[in-house]
Amino acid sequence: MFAIAPAIGKANLSASQLKLLSGKARWIFRVGDAGFPTVPTIVLTRAAWDELQAERSRKELRLRTHWVACLFKLVGKDGVPPPLVVRTSAALHNGGLMPAKLGISAPANPEDSVDPNRPLAKAIKNAFDSYGFGQGWTGRPDEDRGKQIVLVQAQAEGEIEQFLTRNGTTGVMGPAAMGSSPLPALPESIAALVTLVDGKAGQHMACSVAVRRGQVQFLSARPFQASPAAELEAAVDRVNRKVWSAHNAVTRVDPARLAQLLHPRLKSSDGNVPIATGLGVSPGAASGVIVFNPEDAARLRARGKNCILVVNETGPADMEGMKAATGILTARGGMSSHAGVIARITGKPCVAGVRTLSVDSAEMICRIGTREFRSGDRLTIDGTDGRVYAGTLALAQPHIGGAIGTLLGWSDATRKIAVRTNAETVESANTALSFGAEGIGLARSEHMFFSPERMVALRRMILSEDEDDRSRAVDGLVDFQTGDYSALFSAMKGLPVTVRLFDPPLHEFLPRTEEDIEETAASLGLAVRALRQRLDRIAEVNPMLGHRGVRLAITYPEILSMQMQAIMAGVRAASERQAEPVAVEVMVPFVSTASEVAFVRERMNTIAANSGLLRSEKVKMAFGTMIELPRACLRAGDIANMVDFFSFGTNDLTQTTFGISRDDAPTFLAAYQRKGIYERDPFVTIDEKGVGELISIAIQRGRAANPRLKIGICGEHAGDPTSLKFFSGLGVDYVSCSPYRVPVARLTLAQASA
Amino acid sequence: MFAIAPAIGKANLSASQLKLLSGKARWIFRVGDAGFPTVPTIVLTRAAWDELQAERSRKELRLRTHWVACLFKLVGKDGVPPPLVVRTSAALHNGGLMPAKLGISAPANPEDSVDPNRPLAKAIKNAFDSYGFGQGWTGRPDEDRGKQIVLVQAQAEGEIEQFLTRNGTTGVMGPAAMGSSPLPALPESIAALVTLVDGKAGQHMACSVAVRRGQVQFLSARPFQASPAAELEAAVDRVNRKVWSAHNAVTRVDPARLAQLLHPRLKSSDGNVPIATGLGVSPGAASGVIVFNPEDAARLRARGKNCILVVNETGPADMEGMKAATGILTARGGMSSHAGVIARITGKPCVAGVRTLSVDSAEMICRIGTREFRSGDRLTIDGTDGRVYAGTLALAQPHIGGAIGTLLGWSDATRKIAVRTNAETVESANTALSFGAEGIGLARSEHMFFSPERMVALRRMILSEDEDDRSRAVDGLVDFQTGDYSALFSAMKGLPVTVRLFDPPLHEFLPRTEEDIEETAASLGLAVRALRQRLDRIAEVNPMLGHRGVRLAITYPEILSMQMQAIMAGVRAASERQAEPVAVEVMVPFVSTASEVAFVRERMNTIAANSGLLRSEKVKMAFGTMIELPRACLRAGDIANMVDFFSFGTNDLTQTTFGISRDDAPTFLAAYQRKGIYERDPFVTIDEKGVGELISIAIQRGRAANPRLKIGICGEHAGDPTSLKFFSGLGVDYVSCSPYRVPVARLTLAQASA
Repeated sequence: MFAIAPAIGKANLSASQLKLLSGKARWIFRVGDAGFPTVPTIVLTRAAWDELQAERSRKELRLRTHWVACLFKLVGKDGVPPPLVVRTSAALHNGGLMPAKLGISAPANPEDSVDPNRPLAKAIKNAFDSYGFGQGWTGRPDEDRGKQIVLVQAQAEGEIEQFLTRNGTTGVMGPAAMGSSPLPALPESIAALVTLVDGKAGQHMACSVAVRRGQVQFLSARPFQASPAAELEAAVDRVNRKVWSAHNAVTRVDPARLAQLLHPRLKSSDGNVPIATGLGVSPGAASGVIVFNPEDAARLRARGKNCILVVNETGPADMEGMKAATGILTARGGMSSHAGVIARITGKPCVAGVRTLSVDSAEMICRIGTREFRSGDRLTIDGTDGRVYAGTLALAQPHIGGAIGTLLGWSDATRKIAVRTNAETVESANTALSFGAEGIGLARSEHMFFSPERMVALRRMILSEDEDDRSRAVDGLVDFQTGDYSALFSAMKGLPVTVRLFDPPLHEFLPRTEEDIEETAASLGLAVRALRQRLDRIAEVNPMLGHRGVRLAITYPEILSMQMQAIMAGVRAASERQAEPVAVEVMVPFVSTASEVAFVRERMNTIAANSGLLRSEKVKMAFGTMIELPRACLRAGDIANMVDFFSFGTNDLTQTTFGISRDDAPTFLAAYQRKGIYERDPFVTIDEKGVGELISIAIQRGRAANPRLKIGICGEHAGDPTSLKFFSGLGVDYVSCSPYRVPVARLTLAQASA
Repeated sequence: MFAIAPAIGKANLSASQLKLLSGKARWIFRVGDAGFPTVPTIVLTRAAWDELQAERSRKELRLRTHWVACLFKLVGKDGVPPPLVVRTSAALHNGGLMPAKLGISAPANPEDSVDPNRPLAKAIKNAFDSYGFGQGWTGRPDEDRGKQIVLVQAQAEGEIEQFLTRNGTTGVMGPAAMGSSPLPALPESIAALVTLVDGKAGQHMACSVAVRRGQVQFLSARPFQASPAAELEAAVDRVNRKVWSAHNAVTRVDPARLAQLLHPRLKSSDGNVPIATGLGVSPGAASGVIVFNPEDAARLRARGKNCILVVNETGPADMEGMKAATGILTARGGMSSHAGVIARITGKPCVAGVRTLSVDSAEMICRIGTREFRSGDRLTIDGTDGRVYAGTLALAQPHIGGAIGTLLGWSDATRKIAVRTNAETVESANTALSFGAEGIGLARSEHMFFSPERMVALRRMILSEDEDDRSRAVDGLVDFQTGDYSALFSAMKGLPVTVRLFDPPLHEFLPRTEEDIEETAASLGLAVRALRQRLDRIAEVNPMLGHRGVRLAITYPEILSMQMQAIMAGVRAASERQAEPVAVEVMVPFVSTASEVAFVRERMNTIAANSGLLRSEKVKMAFGTMIELPRACLRAGDIANMVDFFSFGTNDLTQTTFGISRDDAPTFLAAYQRKGIYERDPFVTIDEKGVGELISIAIQRGRAANPRLKIGICGEHAGDPTSLKFFSGLGVDYVSCSPYRVPVARLTLAQASA
């Protein structure tokens, strides 16, 4: 199958010939077909060329006659023929392919036009040969051999000019300048070409034209990688111009590109050499002066200055400092370190686990590799890729403008799965609402204690010696929680709020440094030695797999009662002051057996019933479990009978299914990806074949036992487009992600349902 | 349905009547039926008694006629009737039931015999009523009401004597004394009764007889709990006497009781009050003087004295002390702590994690609760239940006599699943061989480094800064390993040896105490500060889920090469000096993806092939994986294509499936069992519904992909009878347990296949 077709005037290609066209050839025909002048071109397929050569050895002339006729059309029958150009047709990748060969003399006779020793046929042969070893097309030479194309063109006369169909940064309709050179002067007729190419391509294109005496001749067009903001604006603009339907726009914007719009980022990393690389644990970039303690951070913030808090690791005492800082940089810890968790919640960029960093906070000095930095020196960090730069680099601020809102509005028309957010403060709840969150899918109640005065109360509870002692400590916590819950319920104005019961490894909330231990002992009225003994007793070898989640509720039922009472008091307070109902969903974490759920449910039901609130029409309550352990997935049928909903905690489920601690994985994960053991980091994109099968088993068994079971996803995978597409196929009812990921989830799930 | 039957002479009961008999009633009929004189007895069922009372109110006499005739037989028609006895018939539990009522006058007329106001009928009524609220039978009153029986007997004349059918400690055929009182003088005819009851009961029985003028009258028999050794000897003796077939003996001995024979144990714990309770992490009891350091332990051992090593926790530096000590007691750690692992390997009793214990080894003082102990004071520990006693308690030494050997020999006739052992030293291999192990199913190669001089070499490797550095350190380890492997292969004389590749969380092998860090720094030629920095870098938050297993082999391929070279050198050395072939199976731990297996297999195959040994008829090699992560179970089909065998590591699989660190579980596991959340400790008995399903999925998918796949179990569950029965149903080919558990596995698996 082959096609030799002239690009002079309308081509009248057959459907099978059109199918063969790709890359530059396709654009020349598209533009020519639309009636715009293009450079005269012959499209020569590999099959056609092979057949021309075969005829030549068989002394036949059937195809050659057509070929020569085409050449005549190109060069004209009279006068001096123009020089010819031979080029490959690859649209994007032309590494290894023959560069365009210019200035070839027209063949003197038909035999010359197919003789590989003569200039034209030689150039054609070289062009085809170059496909053999280059990464032309998809790099699969056998499959694509039939699609290889060489173009023979009349060399254009006049100036060759390049321009973009749209502005690469703003997305405004072009012609627009490409790179740093100014936009060349172009005739008015160019506007029609720009509209034509933009409409057909549906993406930014870089075009070449020849301009001679105010006449434009189209040469070629190839895709151009614009900024995420420009792509988004262009998509919305195409809908406004009725080139696209709203549905087209929703399906064609890449959610991963959208995500890049939602945090400050480096304007460009070209030419900047990072001085260190750690783990990017909270995305976005930040620049500022170095501070080593919360006081300095607060002082700078008060003066409106940006600062980067640099510490070995963060703990509860650093909360205020982290809130005041623009970004956080730590020497130790990973994704689920205190620094990582708090940074993501507060939306601060954070780079953690920089192994070449050491901090001497007393001396106010830190070393990064061989360089020394002092308080006041400037750093830039990129929490997206974990890089650290000396000095201040230019940042681009997130642009949550009209285009995002418009696109997401359209996306809601096809989306079938609800998008909630992970939030436990009114601030993050409001951010998420502004991004379109439809509820809170995960309020981590233990995070409500991340402030110094509350931490004292919490520590008193954890370190209590017996049940009485603990009950007294617990009572002191009810008030804090009640206020937090009622504020959160009110902020969500009737949308559902899922509260996860207390789930920390207890010792995460305990003092670690000498100084912190001394202070805590004083605040609790304990001798330092006695405190140390209690701390030793609580220390765990593998806290991820320790005394946490539902295990706390069962061994310390007084904590469970306190929480449930605080939740009910919060429901009461909110429902008394607002018109909307309060929809609260209480969720038990880290269960592995149905008996655990039964134990907790009985106690919770009693407290909920005793509150008298269940009879109110303004209160909706539901009870559910996190499903985040392999055993819970397998026993989902038993568990589903006792709950209204499942919410999959995919972070912990990935950790236990793979047997990998996310905090400790960095020591081997890079090597694993480099050696091809993992295609993707399973903590970023859900492992469909392992973790995914467990989720699928759990949904199937859970729904079989309880057809009204509601199913959500609340791990960090709920903000990853690839994972979201997988979840969508499993039939989940909602996902819950961090506030800044809500737009990504809305768009991805709209695409998945489209 | 009811039965009234006299026990005078042959009873000629119908089959349905016989079915009703249980407890004492059954024994009276059995003995009477065999022609031995028994006390005259009427067996009155609840149904019969209810019908007699119903007839009485209806003024009928059908059943009463039979009842009166029975009574006549009992008391005789002439002379003074003997006093009567009314008792319940419960064989074992009679808590709450009416005590035997003696000296009841025979009723004066038929109406008296059924009138609940008259002595006989009143006693009968009371006896039946007592079943109503007591724990008679199984404690399920409705179901068992039909089986309630009251006995009416002529009161025996003469002395009432009690004796056992067999010696309670040795199992030798009786009559034997019961308790501490001497055996009463009994007529010769008693031997026939003993033989009769032992043969019919198939267990130790306590009998009551009346002896009058050399004549014996049988009163009752009930089961007696003998020592495990006595039960075993009796079982073998019954086969020798042809009362039982060998098959009977195999199926009737309880493997859990057999296990108790295989370690020293407390002779009796009656009256001893433990001063503390920790975790029994290595079974058996030990008594001795307290020592706080290895030197003192070695000194005492040299003098032939028993000692208990008491420390906060053990580490590699304590190896010699642990070997020298009789038992080990630690304040910290759990089942998989260094102390627990080493103690089980070396067969030393160990109690770990005693939270009320604190040790000041410098001052040579420890406190247990409020008591203070010094070097030289005596303690007794019981590693089976975790109890600690002050002073020296009497111990019973394990008796691995002829009877065990005979029984296990018989058991091998029905057993279909092979029993291997977990061992990495020639000593434990020999112990296991003496217990009948058929190979080594798990040689933990990292345990070969548990000695001070090797530890230095290992630490050098772990702490090396780069690949070159590490390669040099690794080379120094080849020789150690080669010798170890060849010795182990030789000890096993052609039986298969499964070597697990290096699998520690690296930092388990690193120094922890100040002193140890200083020593290590010196031995490695490093500054203490530099060593500390490297240690910080290696430290893990959750080492169980960290940089271990196959992850080490992939990130540090030079460790893998070293090990494989050492294994091949060991194979060469062993095969050159022995006639038997060397059968080595190399096993990759902690895999979660098939790509990990492929990576390791390629490197191992190359080294094995290069050794030239694969062509030898004296060398058999196999390659397999541990399956110990949920993901490996799910992806078993992919993995099975690349291996010869799977070996399930049920300890880690239980940890990850439940999300429970075994080391940290003690803080909630007791509460979980007390509150009924777990019926059983999942680390002792396999969780069939969760972990079991994963194993079953893996076997099914693995065999579907590779029908020749061999399947083993090498977690500690392989020594637990209940778990072994479950594994047997899954169709595994072999199990591998600690040497002392080999007999338990042999017996259990014989029963499971019977």
